[in-house]
Amino acid sequence: MAYDLIIANGTIATASDVFSCDIGIRDGVIVALGHDLGEAAETIDASGKLVLPGGIDSHVHIAQPSGDGIVMADDFASGTLSAAFGGNTTVMPFCMQEKGTSLRETVKDYHKLSEGRCYTDVSFHLVISEPTEQVLGQDLPALIEDGYTSFKVFMTYDGLALNDRQMLEVMSVARETGALVMVHAENDDAIRFLTDRLERGGQIAPKFHGTSRPIPVEREATHRAISLAELVDVPVMIVHVSNREAMEEIQRARSRGLKVYGETCPQYLVLTETDMDGLNMEGAKYVCSPPPRDTASQIACWEGLANGTFNVFSSDHCPFRYDDPAGKLTPKGRTSFRWVPNGIPGVETRLPILFSEGVGKGRITLNQFVALSSTNHARTYGLTKKGSIAIGMDADIAIWDPQRQVTISQSLLHHGSDYTPYEGIAVTGWPVTTILRGQVVIRDGELAGKPGQGGHVARERSQLARPVGAPPHA
Amino acid sequence: MAYDLIIANGTIATASDVFSCDIGIRDGVIVALGHDLGEAAETIDASGKLVLPGGIDSHVHIAQPSGDGIVMADDFASGTLSAAFGGNTTVMPFCMQEKGTSLRETVKDYHKLSEGRCYTDVSFHLVISEPTEQVLGQDLPALIEDGYTSFKVFMTYDGLALNDRQMLEVMSVARETGALVMVHAENDDAIRFLTDRLERGGQIAPKFHGTSRPIPVEREATHRAISLAELVDVPVMIVHVSNREAMEEIQRARSRGLKVYGETCPQYLVLTETDMDGLNMEGAKYVCSPPPRDTASQIACWEGLANGTFNVFSSDHCPFRYDDPAGKLTPKGRTSFRWVPNGIPGVETRLPILFSEGVGKGRITLNQFVALSSTNHARTYGLTKKGSIAIGMDADIAIWDPQRQVTISQSLLHHGSDYTPYEGIAVTGWPVTTILRGQVVIRDGELAGKPGQGGHVARERSQLARPVGAPPHA
Amino acid sequence: MAYDLIIANGTIATASDVFSCDIGIRDGVIVALGHDLGEAAETIDASGKLVLPGGIDSHVHIAQPSGDGIVMADDFASGTLSAAFGGNTTVMPFCMQEKGTSLRETVKDYHKLSEGRCYTDVSFHLVISEPTEQVLGQDLPALIEDGYTSFKVFMTYDGLALNDRQMLEVMSVARETGALVMVHAENDDAIRFLTDRLERGGQIAPKFHGTSRPIPVEREATHRAISLAELVDVPVMIVHVSNREAMEEIQRARSRGLKVYGETCPQYLVLTETDMDGLNMEGAKYVCSPPPRDTASQIACWEGLANGTFNVFSSDHCPFRYDDPAGKLTPKGRTSFRWVPNGIPGVETRLPILFSEGVGKGRITLNQFVALSSTNHARTYGLTKKGSIAIGMDADIAIWDPQRQVTISQSLLHHGSDYTPYEGIAVTGWPVTTILRGQVVIRDGELAGKPGQGGHVARERSQLARPVGAPPHA
Amino acid sequence: MAYDLIIANGTIATASDVFSCDIGIRDGVIVALGHDLGEAAETIDASGKLVLPGGIDSHVHIAQPSGDGIVMADDFASGTLSAAFGGNTTVMPFCMQEKGTSLRETVKDYHKLSEGRCYTDVSFHLVISEPTEQVLGQDLPALIEDGYTSFKVFMTYDGLALNDRQMLEVMSVARETGALVMVHAENDDAIRFLTDRLERGGQIAPKFHGTSRPIPVEREATHRAISLAELVDVPVMIVHVSNREAMEEIQRARSRGLKVYGETCPQYLVLTETDMDGLNMEGAKYVCSPPPRDTASQIACWEGLANGTFNVFSSDHCPFRYDDPAGKLTPKGRTSFRWVPNGIPGVETRLPILFSEGVGKGRITLNQFVALSSTNHARTYGLTKKGSIAIGMDADIAIWDPQRQVTISQSLLHHGSDYTPYEGIAVTGWPVTTILRGQVVIRDGELAGKPGQGGHVARERSQLARPVGAPPHA
Repeated sequence: MAYDLIIANGTIATASDVFSCDIGIRDGVIVALGHDLGEAAETIDASGKLVLPGGIDSHVHIAQPSGDGIVMADDFASGTLSAAFGGNTTVMPFCMQEKGTSLRETVKDYHKLSEGRCYTDVSFHLVISEPTEQVLGQDLPALIEDGYTSFKVFMTYDGLALNDRQMLEVMSVARETGALVMVHAENDDAIRFLTDRLERGGQIAPKFHGTSRPIPVEREATHRAISLAELVDVPVMIVHVSNREAMEEIQRARSRGLKVYGETCPQYLVLTETDMDGLNMEGAKYVCSPPPRDTASQIACWEGLANGTFNVFSSDHCPFRYDDPAGKLTPKGRTSFRWVPNGIPGVETRLPILFSEGVGKGRITLNQFVALSSTNHARTYGLTKKGSIAIGMDADIAIWDPQRQVTISQSLLHHGSDYTPYEGIAVTGWPVTTILRGQVVIRDGELAGKPGQGGHVARERSQLARPVGAPPHA
Repeated sequence: MAYDLIIANGTIATASDVFSCDIGIRDGVIVALGHDLGEAAETIDASGKLVLPGGIDSHVHIAQPSGDGIVMADDFASGTLSAAFGGNTTVMPFCMQEKGTSLRETVKDYHKLSEGRCYTDVSFHLVISEPTEQVLGQDLPALIEDGYTSFKVFMTYDGLALNDRQMLEVMSVARETGALVMVHAENDDAIRFLTDRLERGGQIAPKFHGTSRPIPVEREATHRAISLAELVDVPVMIVHVSNREAMEEIQRARSRGLKVYGETCPQYLVLTETDMDGLNMEGAKYVCSPPPRDTASQIACWEGLANGTFNVFSSDHCPFRYDDPAGKLTPKGRTSFRWVPNGIPGVETRLPILFSEGVGKGRITLNQFVALSSTNHARTYGLTKKGSIAIGMDADIAIWDPQRQVTISQSLLHHGSDYTPYEGIAVTGWPVTTILRGQVVIRDGELAGKPGQGGHVARERSQLARPVGAPPHA
Repeated sequence: MAYDLIIANGTIATASDVFSCDIGIRDGVIVALGHDLGEAAETIDASGKLVLPGGIDSHVHIAQPSGDGIVMADDFASGTLSAAFGGNTTVMPFCMQEKGTSLRETVKDYHKLSEGRCYTDVSFHLVISEPTEQVLGQDLPALIEDGYTSFKVFMTYDGLALNDRQMLEVMSVARETGALVMVHAENDDAIRFLTDRLERGGQIAPKFHGTSRPIPVEREATHRAISLAELVDVPVMIVHVSNREAMEEIQRARSRGLKVYGETCPQYLVLTETDMDGLNMEGAKYVCSPPPRDTASQIACWEGLANGTFNVFSSDHCPFRYDDPAGKLTPKGRTSFRWVPNGIPGVETRLPILFSEGVGKGRITLNQFVALSSTNHARTYGLTKKGSIAIGMDADIAIWDPQRQVTISQSLLHHGSDYTPYEGIAVTGWPVTTILRGQVVIRDGELAGKPGQGGHVARERSQLARPVGAPPHA
Repeated sequence: MAYDLIIANGTIATASDVFSCDIGIRDGVIVALGHDLGEAAETIDASGKLVLPGGIDSHVHIAQPSGDGIVMADDFASGTLSAAFGGNTTVMPFCMQEKGTSLRETVKDYHKLSEGRCYTDVSFHLVISEPTEQVLGQDLPALIEDGYTSFKVFMTYDGLALNDRQMLEVMSVARETGALVMVHAENDDAIRFLTDRLERGGQIAPKFHGTSRPIPVEREATHRAISLAELVDVPVMIVHVSNREAMEEIQRARSRGLKVYGETCPQYLVLTETDMDGLNMEGAKYVCSPPPRDTASQIACWEGLANGTFNVFSSDHCPFRYDDPAGKLTPKGRTSFRWVPNGIPGVETRLPILFSEGVGKGRITLNQFVALSSTNHARTYGLTKKGSIAIGMDADIAIWDPQRQVTISQSLLHHGSDYTPYEGIAVTGWPVTTILRGQVVIRDGELAGKPGQGGHVARERSQLARPVGAPPHA
C-alpha cells in the first residue's frame, strides 16, 4: 500500500491557495498531492467538500482551577472532543501557574491531566502569575527551551494580574529566549474601582459586568502593554481584542514600527453587551472578559480580521456550566456579577461561525479563513508541522460540507457546558470529518476516534517572536 | 488723592488686547484705566515699557522635604524673592502630604513655613500621597471648600506614587467637589526597571537619568492618566509635558471630547538630554523629570504653546544646590543617577526665556505670552482676582523692558541654588519692576519690598474643572 | 463734558476677563474704564446687563450677484441692520470678483453698493475667482496693501472654483504679502459627479443636496487645501467646517506644525441634514454648503469651539427669500436641488444661538463667547481697533440682557429673507442695545441709528498670517 | 512518462508554507507534489536550492511611447528576457491609451508589439487617459469582460492625468464591473507649480526632481484618490508608495473600513533623494516618480512590507537609456529636470534586492517574500493559475540559489538600459533557473528559452475588487 489514507476529490484550501487534488497520507504525514495517487488502505471521498487544514485554536482553557468551588466544565477529554467535532485538530490550553506553585510542577500537573485523554493534539502555553527569580532565571527559560515557547500574562484577575514591573521582567525573558508574550489587557484597578462603585449602587446583575469593564479599561491596558513591550523591545500578542479603540492602539504601534499582533474571538463578532441583559441570572451565560461590546465594535472586529489587524481568531473557550452551583450560578455569583466566573464555551462553534459569517457573507476569503483559523496560529506559535496542507505536514485535516445548514444548539455540541452562548445562530457550512495525523477522529459527524489519540506537541520559536540575539529595534 | 499709584504711559497687554493708557490703583486694586487719571500718591512712568499682568507660576516647589538629607535650595523667602525678580506676583507651591501625615497638618505646616516670609502671593496646591478614607472623605473635600481647589498626584517617585485605584479614588473626589487634578505622568515601574538595568550595567552617570525615563514611559502614563480621568469623567491637567508623543495623547483625548489640559516648562524648550552629558557630575545640574528630550521635542513643545495643546507654561521650579552634599551631590547621588534629586531651578528665568524665544522670535504673540504666563494660570486654578489688567483685579503687575538684553547667569539670579541650568542663554526683554497688589516689590531691578508682603490666596473652583453636579460626559 | 457717552454699571466681558465698571467713550473711542468717571453727554445704565464687544461677523454675503435671476435677499442696508439687531458692530462681506471683471473694479463696485447704507461697520474680504497675471502681480498685492488683507478662494461652485494650481498661485501672493487665505473646501468634481448621478436617479428634492456633498467631499478638500498651503508655507483658514472628519484634518495639520485655522457656523450646531427633508420645497430653506450634518457632527463642532479647533464662529449669512422665484424657488430650483441657491440667513441669530446654547448650557465660557464672536475675528483679520473693550478701542459695544427669553421667529428679525432656518428655537439671552463707535444704533431693541452710520474699515495684516519676509517653515 | 519535468529535492516555499518534496509537471501544469514521483522526460535537481513560485511583477512599463523622441529602452523581448533572468515568469505591462486613440486599438497595438516576442507570460493592465463615453460605456467594460480586469489612472503627467471627475467616472465603471483601479497618486498642479518655481530660480539639475515632488504632493493625492474611491465605494490600489505619510493615509482609510491597498518598489527601499545629486546629469539615472525619499522613508516602507500596509512589491520597471539623446539625456532633458524622462529599470533586480535585504536581513519571512513578490500579485490581479506552487497551477517556477553572492552591475543584466540604478549593491541569493509553464527559460543562469515562449494571459476579477452587485459599503 502506497498510502495509509487518501482523501480524494476534494477542494483543498490553504492560506494561499485553493486547488483540487487527492491527498496521500502515510504515517500521519501528508506525503503526496496530486491525482491518481495509487492505492491506499483507506480512501475518503471528499467530492463536493472543502478539505482544510484542521483548525488550531490557540486560546482555550481546559481543566483550570477556578477557585470558590467552581469547576471548569471541560476536562481534556470533553474539551478536545468538542474541539474535534468543531473541526479542530490542535488546541492550545494553558498551564496556569498558581501562586506558590512552581512552574515546573504546574506543567507536570497539566500533562497528567491531559495525557491519554485527548482527541486532538494539544500544545500548552504557560501562564506566569508569580515571576519569582526561580521562574525568571531558571524555570521559564528552561521550559521555553523544552518547547513551551509562548506564555500569557494577565493585567487583571485576582491572583493572576502582574504589575508593570513584573510584566517588564517576563518580557525581558521573552527577549532573551525568543518566546512570544500574550497579554490579557484590562486595567485591574479600574475594574475593581468600577465594580465596587456598581456594587455600592446595588448594580449587581450580570449585565453590569459590561459596565464594570468599559472600552477605556481595555484600551488603556492595551496601550500600556504595548508600551512595556516597546521599552523591552519584544513583540507582543494582544489576545481577545473586542473593539475599535484597542485595535487603534495596535495599529498606531505598528505605525511606529513595533511588532504588535492581535487576536479576536467569536464573542466579539456575534454577541453584544445586551446579551448580558437577561432576566434573573440568564445574563451570566455571556459573562466573559473583555465583555462583548456593541454592533459598531463587531464591525470593527470584522474589519480587523479582513485587514490584518488580527492575525489569529481563537475561541477563548473557557467553559462553565450555567445551571450549576459549581458553575455560573455559585451562591456568591448570585450576589454580584463580580463573582460570576468569567468565560464562555466556544471551541466547537468558533469555526462554523467564522466560516458562515465570514466566508459565506464575503467578509473574508476562504484563504483568510484558513489563515485565521489554522495557519497563522501555527506560525505564530511555532507549530511547524501544523496548520497547512503541504508535503511533510502532519495530516491534520478537517473536511467541511460548505452547504450544510445548521442552527447552533446546545443539543448538537459536545463540550461540558450545559449551554452555548451561540444558541440559535444559523450557519451554513460545518466540519463533518476531522483527521488527526492521518487518523479519523470524527467521521461524517460521528465519533470515530478515541481518547489519547491526541498528544502534546512541543513547539519551535514563533516566527513573530524576536529572534534571540537580534539587534535592538532601530 | 484719587489713587495710591498710577502706572503711566505704558503699553499694556492682556491675554486679548494690547493698548496704551494709564492704570490707576487704589487699595491694591486696579480701579481705573484711561488717560489723565488725576493725582496719585505715586506715579511710575512706564514709557517705552510693557505693562503686563504679573506672572503666575502655577508649578513651583518650595521648602519641600526631599529625604536623604537633601535640602531644597529655596525657602519661601528666597523662592518668592526669585519669583518676584522674574516678574511674578503669584506662585503656586505644593503642600505635599508625606505618608503618615494628615493632610490638614500638612497644610498647616506649609502655612507656617510661608507666613510672613513671602515677596509674592502664594496659593497652595495639595499633593495627595496617601488617599486614606480620612483624606478622601473628610480632609480633601474640606480643604477644597477652603480654597485649595487643585491637587496633584504622582504616578512615580517613592512615597508619592499613587496606584491606579488611588488615582481613581482621588479623581472621584475631584468630580464631587469640582477640584482640578494635576498629574505627574511617568510610569514608575518602568523607571525602576530601567534604572535597575542601567545600574546593573554600570551606567550610573547623570546622563543615564534620561535613558531611564524615555518617551514611552511618559506617553504611557499620560494615556493612562487620561483613561482614568475618562472613566471617572473629570478634567485633568497633565503637567510638565516634554514631547510630541505625550502631546498626541492629549490631542487624541480632546478629539474624543475629553477635557484634558497640558502644561510645559522652559526645560523642554531650551534644554536637551545632551545637557546631562557633562563630565563628572555636571550633568546632575539638569536632572529633572521628565528629562529634557531632543530638538524635535523642543519644536513640538513650541507648537503646543502656539496651538493651544498647552494652556499653561510653568517653571516646575524645584531648586537644589549643585556643589553641596545636601543638594545634587549627595554621597548617594554620586553612586548613581537614581539618587540625584530630581529638579532644577527656574522660577526667575521662566518668563524671560518665554518672552525672548517666544514673542521675540515670533513663535507666539504677546497676547499668548500673557495668557500662557499669567492669565490662563489664574483661570485654570481659580485665582479670580489675578492674571489680568482689568478693573477690579488685584494690581499685580510686571513692567518689562522689552529691549533689555541679558545673558542669563547665576550671578544675576536670586534663588537659593548655586547654579542655573540656563547659564549663558542670551535673552532680549526682562522684567524690571514688579508690583504686588499695588505695592512695588522690585523697582527697576532692585528689591523694594519686604518679606511678608505676599500672602496666601484661597481660590475659587477652576473654570476648567467639572462643575459640581454637572451631568456625566455625553 | 468729559465723555460723549458713559455705559454704567454693566458687567463687562472680554476674551480674557469679566469685570464691572463704567465705560467712558469720547469721539467714538473707549477712553476710560473705572468708576465715578464724571460727566457725560449721555449715560446708559447697564445694570444687570452684560456689556460685550460688539459682534464681528467675519463671514457674511451681502448683495452678491447670484446668477440665474436670483437676487440676494439683503442689500447693505438690510444686511447691516439685521446684523446690528443681532448685536454686531462689524460685518465682513465679500467683494466677489466675477470672471472677466477686474479685481479693482469689483472692489469699487462693492464700495458703491455699501457706501452710505450701512448700520454697522463693514470690512471687505476679497474673493479671487480669476487669478490672472494682473490680479496676482498687481491688483491683489495693491489691494492687500490698501487694507483688504484677506481673501477667500472657493474649491467649488461654477465660475468661482479655483483649480489647485490657481490655489497655489494665490497662496503664493499671500505668502509674499502677509494676507490671510480663507478656503471654502469642498471637492467640486465630486459634487458634480454625485449631483449628476442623483439627478439621473430622479433624486432631485432639496434633501438630496446633503447627499450630493457628503462628509468625504469636505474632508478631501480640507486635506487638499491644507496640503497646498503646506507646500507654499502659508497659514490657511478653513471656513464653515461642518464635521469631525474635516476637523481632524485641521488637528492633524497642527500636529505637523502647520498653521491651520478653522471656522464653524450656527447651522452646524443646531441644524441637521434632516432639516432638508421638508415636503415639497420646504427643505430648500436649509440648503447651504457644506450642508448641515447630524447630531454627532454637532457634538464635534461644539467640542471644536471649546477646545480651540475653531477660532472663529461666523454666520456665513447668505440670505435668499424662500417664497420667491428670485430666491429659493426659482423655476430651475424647482427642477433640482442643484439649482437651489446655496445659503441661509443668520447674521442676526448667530450670537443669541451661541450665547444660549454655548454659554447658557456650559459648553463654552463667557470669555470664549467673546473671543469666538468678536475678538478672534478682529485678531484673525487685522481689525486692530475692534473686538474688545479696552482703552483706545473703537467703542463698538453690544449690551445684552442675559435673562431675556426669546423664541426665534421670522417676525422678530430684520434681514431681507422671508424666513429663518432657526424658526422656533428658544434662546435665553439677547442683545438689546448696539453701539457703533460710540453711537447708539439699536437702543433697547429699537432702531436708533441711521444708514451710513457704519463705514468701511481698512485692515492691518492678520496676527495669524505669515509675516512678510519670515523664514520658511522649519 | 508520467511527467514532462520533475523538479527534485528542492526546498519549496509558498506564501504560507515551506516544505521539501519533488514537483511533477505535465503539460505546463503542476500535477504532483511528493516524493518518488516516478519517471519524467527531464529532471532538474534542486538540492540546496529554493524552489519558489515564479515572480510576478505587476507593475512594468514596456515599449510605451514617451514623446519628445524618447524611446523606452525595453521592447517586449528585452523586457521579458530581463524579467526572466530576474526570476519572473509573468509581468504586467500597461496598454496605455494615448489621447485620441481608441482603447480597443490601444490594446490591439500592444498585443502586436508583444506577440511572439516574450520570454515570460504577460498580462496587460489598461491605462485610461481619455475616459470618453465610448471608453466608459463600451470599451472598458468589454475589455474587463475580456480579461483586462485592472486599469491604472494617473493623477499627474501631461496627457495622462485624469481630473477628479474622470477618476470618479472610471471608478464607477470599476464598481459596475468588478475591475480593480490602480492609482498613480501625485498632485499634478502642485508639481507643475513647484517645477515652474524651481526653473524660474535656475534650479534645473536632476536633483530638483525630488524637490518638485515633495511628500505632501504624494500624500495629498493619496488621500484624494482614497476619498474618491470612498465616494464611489470601490477598492483602490495605490501604487509605488514612497513614504510614511502616504502610508498613513492608507492605514487611516483601512481604519475607517475602506478597502485600500498599497504597493511599494525597490527604489523606495534602497535609494534616496541624494542619489539624484550626481554631478552633471548623473542624477538623471535615478529620476522616477514618486522620487526616492530618505532613510526614514525607507524604514517606513520596510515596515509596510512587513506589516501588511503593502500587499504587493513591484519594480515599476520603466527603463530608459542614460547616455542616449533618446533616453535620459535628451536635449530638452539637459535644459531641466522637467524633461528628463521619469522612470528607472528594475525588473531584473527587484527580487534579489527584496530577498537579500528582506529575507536575508530578517525584515520579512520567506513566506512574505513569496507573497509580496508573486502570490499577492496573482490574487490582486486575478491570475488564478499563477503565483503559487500547488496542484493545478501553472508550472511557473524560479529556482534560487540562496547563498549566491552577487554585486549588482549593469554588465550582469539583460534589460535594454545602459545602466542600473542599483549598481554596486551586494546581495546574497539569486534566481538561477526560471521555468515558465514547465518550460525552462533560464537554466543555471543561461538563456534556454526563446522569444514567444511567453504569451498573454487573460485574467479573472481581482479577489480584492468589489464583487459585482455587492451591496454598498455599510
